[in-house]
Amino acid sequence: MHAVIFISQRTSVDDGYGETNDALMKVVQEQPGFIDSESWRNEEGYGVTIVYFDSAEASSAWGGHPQHREAQRLGREKWYSEYRILVCKVERDWKWPKTDAA
Amino acid sequence: MHAVIFISQRTSVDDGYGETNDALMKVVQEQPGFIDSESWRNEEGYGVTIVYFDSAEASSAWGGHPQHREAQRLGREKWYSEYRILVCKVERDWKWPKTDAA
Repeated sequence: MHAVIFISQRTSVDDGYGETNDALMKVVQEQPGFIDSESWRNEEGYGVTIVYFDSAEASSAWGGHPQHREAQRLGREKWYSEYRILVCKVERDWKWPKTDAA
Repeated sequence: MHAVIFISQRTSVDDGYGETNDALMKVVQEQPGFIDSESWRNEEGYGVTIVYFDSAEASSAWGGHPQHREAQRLGREKWYSEYRILVCKVERDWKWPKTDAA
């Protein structure tokens, strides 16, 4: 599994941000190899989105997807003052579920 | 570089959570190979902490650190209803700074 970590600082500009983000989150879910995604953003507009894919190829294809590229361009122009993208190979993955007996 | 992603759902129990978390964040910064860490948590108590290390060995040593192990135990007992830990090897790392000319 691969995880793409997108860390970003929002500007104060909205101008289509929500709509583009929503549309993009739908598109990514249709991509081959997509597993899951989740996002957080704090009150200062600093946020992270993690998207999980089943392979390096799938994560890389998403990076070059035309609709994603266009959103990236708009993001640099309007919505983000800075961002960072980390493409990661997941080596270990533990989950801890609280049992009913606990 | 390695990234350790800790995703967790908080319970409503506080009981030392803040103090332990603050102490642990200080300890991790003193670990060999520590680079940086950042955290988010939403209003539903669902959060993520990403800790960056310079090697797999450093991230693994942190996982087994006695004070960290004790905090994990308390976390399962009191503070978290579920969590997930992903240990990741960072394959690509892009940063985009907005230039002054933009």
